[in-house]
Amino acid sequence: MADTEFSLIYQQIAPCAGVRDDVLLGIGDDAAIVQPTTGQSIVVALDTLVSGRHFFPTCAPEDIAWKALAVNLSDLAAMGAVPKWALLSLSLPLENAQKGWIKRFMAGWQGLAQQYAVALIGGDTTRADQLAVSVTLIGEVSPGSAIQRSGAMPGDEIWLSGTIGDAGLALAQRYANQAVDDAVAMRLDRPTPRVNLGFSLRNLATAAIDISDGFLADLGHILKASGNLGARVEVDAMPFSPMVDAWQRQMSPLLPLTSGDDYELLFTAPIALHNRLNALSEELSVALTCVGRVLPSDQGMQLIKNGELLVIPQRQGFDHFASPAIMKTS
Amino acid sequence: MADTEFSLIYQQIAPCAGVRDDVLLGIGDDAAIVQPTTGQSIVVALDTLVSGRHFFPTCAPEDIAWKALAVNLSDLAAMGAVPKWALLSLSLPLENAQKGWIKRFMAGWQGLAQQYAVALIGGDTTRADQLAVSVTLIGEVSPGSAIQRSGAMPGDEIWLSGTIGDAGLALAQRYANQAVDDAVAMRLDRPTPRVNLGFSLRNLATAAIDISDGFLADLGHILKASGNLGARVEVDAMPFSPMVDAWQRQMSPLLPLTSGDDYELLFTAPIALHNRLNALSEELSVALTCVGRVLPSDQGMQLIKNGELLVIPQRQGFDHFASPAIMKTS
Repeated sequence: MADTEFSLIYQQIAPCAGVRDDVLLGIGDDAAIVQPTTGQSIVVALDTLVSGRHFFPTCAPEDIAWKALAVNLSDLAAMGAVPKWALLSLSLPLENAQKGWIKRFMAGWQGLAQQYAVALIGGDTTRADQLAVSVTLIGEVSPGSAIQRSGAMPGDEIWLSGTIGDAGLALAQRYANQAVDDAVAMRLDRPTPRVNLGFSLRNLATAAIDISDGFLADLGHILKASGNLGARVEVDAMPFSPMVDAWQRQMSPLLPLTSGDDYELLFTAPIALHNRLNALSEELSVALTCVGRVLPSDQGMQLIKNGELLVIPQRQGFDHFASPAIMKTS
Repeated sequence: MADTEFSLIYQQIAPCAGVRDDVLLGIGDDAAIVQPTTGQSIVVALDTLVSGRHFFPTCAPEDIAWKALAVNLSDLAAMGAVPKWALLSLSLPLENAQKGWIKRFMAGWQGLAQQYAVALIGGDTTRADQLAVSVTLIGEVSPGSAIQRSGAMPGDEIWLSGTIGDAGLALAQRYANQAVDDAVAMRLDRPTPRVNLGFSLRNLATAAIDISDGFLADLGHILKASGNLGARVEVDAMPFSPMVDAWQRQMSPLLPLTSGDDYELLFTAPIALHNRLNALSEELSVALTCVGRVLPSDQGMQLIKNGELLVIPQRQGFDHFASPAIMKTS
């Protein structure tokens, strides 16, 4: 057979697949076979990144691969699941269907996949006019212990991991053709999925989501799924890095609350767990910040700054189809 | 939140998701959760179809959806697996991101998904310049009973389901702007995945693959995976529909052997099972034809027609990257 495509796949991708004992049949047959752990539930996420929309066309192949896997790891983290197996669909223009590009792409993939022992078990490689990367990530969770968006209760505290707004600042700087500081660029290009945190939050958090659309939009998803609950958010308590803090002081505190792509975990938990969550933060070396409280239903979203109510922007997150001209990176 | 995208997803897609008792959490959270059957292995396939490459830009949305699911069902069929859960990634140009288009697409999806009780549990919808549909299909198989490509043995018979070449004829006619007969058009646009046959072939077939690249290329995959075995194929025994038979008589018998997209099952089985496979054919009302024998390694692929050896074409199947200008439909 003519085997350029197969050469690409096998020579460049298969050796980077990673090894797991529970992979019974990996890349190379009609489908892959894995052996789930007896009694566990299967958790699956699928996210597609498209060039010019979710990442800049100039983005390094290593970063594209990292991010395509990271956003899916982040989805599983938000469920408290353990990631195990991935499938990769690469839609490649001719300039990307080259050994050098694939090699760099797979180096970025491996850099993150190995951290979480994720095995690449299959996928598809096709030609396309526009570069797109679609990742399906499969993991496991104990039945009933997955953290869903719908479990928040009035009175729960609202928590955030890490800092938010860094990716948004990097994106704003790139659009303005300004120099982008390495620290915020890394937050945009190589987000850190909070896998271990998510796993540790099982049976602690009442609801969780990862911040991809933006803090306000994603908090809105939790509140809506939990029965149209309200929330009171202390803007002065929001965890901003020094650069984002300077940015929001200069521009608007709403910017880091509405920019996406942070891939931090936003979760709710009973107030009785406050100290336990602070201890978990130290244990995992991941900053956890309490930023507000869940309110009873139909009380809306109240943003408090300096003791006063801020006006909530109508547009709390990104929408692909409502704003076709705006590039989004998640 | 601005929710055009979410409206698209929820209003048009979620109601078409289908219902299964083993779906613990479907569309709408960060990831989906399903409960596998205790003791079963998990089988996963991922295939992406890109407009202008895997289907004509004029293709009906119902047919695109059908085919995107069918090619994955066919992959699981080739393993002998039972399909259960699907995820769908839609990369949509603005003209496709419309309720009418999504509605028709989902009607095509449901038409096939309901036949096999496949539930849509999640996915992703993004804007793109080029229409692309990526489907991840997850199923189950008993440990050790999956049919792999690598199990063919010298002396095994080579079998084919249905007829081959119909999709290739339809494609050739469309390229030539000729009228395409409905019967062959259906074989190209709405292929029939051989799910029940594949399931029945567990513990009968020694190796199996579905015909996507073309008979010779796909037989080559089995022979290579089984230890570089050889094969003797009786071209006069090949199952052609009357239209394909006329086509190959006029043009070349190699055309239906090298055209892809048939999604029939090609499998090998011990000669002792010959009568049992004929009985299975009657039982399932699926034509099964013995077209040759597996030979010991390094005997190559021998095509016999009228008792004479045919010259084997160098190019036995399609390659996306070697032939970027040729549209392929699988």
